[in-house]
Amino acid sequence: MQFTVTILGAGSATPTLNRHPSSQLISYESENFLIDCGEGTQFRLLEYKIRPGKLKGIFISHLHGDHYFGLIGLLSSLNLGGRTEDLLLFGPQGLDEILTLQFKYSQTPLQFRIIYIPTNTTQSTLLYEHSCFNVYTIPLNHRIPCAGFLFQEKLHKRKLIKEKITEDIPFDYLRQLKNEEDIYDEGGNLQYSVADYTLPAPPSRSYAYCSDTRYDESIIPIIRGVSLLYHEATFQDDLAHQAAARFHSTAREAATIAHKANVGQLLIGHFSSRYKKVDSFLNEAQSVFPNSHIAEEGTTFNILSVPSTDASLLPDT
Amino acid sequence: MQFTVTILGAGSATPTLNRHPSSQLISYESENFLIDCGEGTQFRLLEYKIRPGKLKGIFISHLHGDHYFGLIGLLSSLNLGGRTEDLLLFGPQGLDEILTLQFKYSQTPLQFRIIYIPTNTTQSTLLYEHSCFNVYTIPLNHRIPCAGFLFQEKLHKRKLIKEKITEDIPFDYLRQLKNEEDIYDEGGNLQYSVADYTLPAPPSRSYAYCSDTRYDESIIPIIRGVSLLYHEATFQDDLAHQAAARFHSTAREAATIAHKANVGQLLIGHFSSRYKKVDSFLNEAQSVFPNSHIAEEGTTFNILSVPSTDASLLPDT
Repeated sequence: MQFTVTILGAGSATPTLNRHPSSQLISYESENFLIDCGEGTQFRLLEYKIRPGKLKGIFISHLHGDHYFGLIGLLSSLNLGGRTEDLLLFGPQGLDEILTLQFKYSQTPLQFRIIYIPTNTTQSTLLYEHSCFNVYTIPLNHRIPCAGFLFQEKLHKRKLIKEKITEDIPFDYLRQLKNEEDIYDEGGNLQYSVADYTLPAPPSRSYAYCSDTRYDESIIPIIRGVSLLYHEATFQDDLAHQAAARFHSTAREAATIAHKANVGQLLIGHFSSRYKKVDSFLNEAQSVFPNSHIAEEGTTFNILSVPSTDASLLPDT
Repeated sequence: MQFTVTILGAGSATPTLNRHPSSQLISYESENFLIDCGEGTQFRLLEYKIRPGKLKGIFISHLHGDHYFGLIGLLSSLNLGGRTEDLLLFGPQGLDEILTLQFKYSQTPLQFRIIYIPTNTTQSTLLYEHSCFNVYTIPLNHRIPCAGFLFQEKLHKRKLIKEKITEDIPFDYLRQLKNEEDIYDEGGNLQYSVADYTLPAPPSRSYAYCSDTRYDESIIPIIRGVSLLYHEATFQDDLAHQAAARFHSTAREAATIAHKANVGQLLIGHFSSRYKKVDSFLNEAQSVFPNSHIAEEGTTFNILSVPSTDASLLPDT
């Protein structure tokens, strides 16, 4: 099951030609979800040849422009492109009002339905239940209401050991074995045991998106042990005071959260435009949490259940 | 007096990587004005090293997204960049409501004042009086309320003939001569004549921006004889039916308007994304109106009072 995140934008609010405003694409099997949608996101999708028609839902963390000003343009283009399937839209209170007003003045009749689900930005709640994963909000400590998102894969079933499965075992028995039920014969004797015929279920994977936020340990219980954490790192350590004043974090703070939450890997982004290069962000983060990575735009990261080396974070293709 | 237009975006609604949505920069001496502001316009300004701080006003033709979705991002960035000077904003009814709602939810206190002047999209009216030029609306024939803009330089004064001006002519006399007043002595005899001491005033220049619109000859009286006309050309002749149905024009129609209005030069743009190359737009337009040009993104065109060759349209620098 493919489960990846592709970085479309890793810059912050001040515009720059080096980096674009926040946006990420989550791919789960053949379905795509967008997290945040800064200005120009639809052009990033074109650039990376990602077909927006496969988009099932969009998650908006908060209503600062660098996280959603590209949404109205993307929705308009989906409509112009002939989309008819429903689109899920998760975001803070006010988002639907803004979109409705813009569609009203452009006199655009939408050919598809936007199913708007307001986010709870004050406590972590189940926001969306997919057949393969759940999405929960992560309340963040920012200047305006803001919630990150936790994608938590559902528990997998145990795997059958192919070599041991013969044709005489009824199909129903196989289903029971995968569900951790031993099979007994009519006399009550163990006929097929879960331990003999199956392997443990692969561990489930999870991804947490935390942007924008001050350093705040209250998110740790929510994101504990996630496979991959994206945490904003707008500033570096020497501007820690400024980071706090502006409700942002430093690379060191992002790494400290990753360490304390015992996550598998850390991705950092949302870099201030004052930094032309980002190597020093990585050094600062890795000094606290070695398995840290830069959210390079255009890069796709595999979300892996087990912490791995840098190489294996990158997709096979 | 510099009077130029720089093309920032010459595409139409469907996003493409070849062209950007509509936006143009008018430079008059040291002041800049923006006409339309499609998504990503602030990044075009960065790309072309145009300092947005010098922006005095923004004109929005209509509320289709490819003409204004970049406005909120640009305004937010001006604020973030520390702007304190007033900004003039001209646009159709509804634009201020949209911006106000977005600033409300981002909880952004603006450090500069936006002076909003609603446009009259049903008849041509004086919209803005600058010390050197006036701007009038041009009602256009589009699916929603839409107005183009006519920048009309004010009449210049006559020019003194330097060689004839001696030190004994009082300064007041020079002013009167430039204002076309002959000077008589006390006995009523002609002392200095306008014809002898001055040259005719240089002709004033004008620029008309017409996007988006169906072919509509009712604009001809408003734009007659302008130095430079920008007229949209979304389609080519073979799709004339589609152009009309979508309230757009073809290259041939744009050129026909230019011809009938006896303008100096024609610029065409707002090309549909279905056309990868635009040579054939130029051929089609030039077959009707030879002095036609493609609105190439990144190109600055001089607005010249007298029709000229291709070369002289381009700026000296």
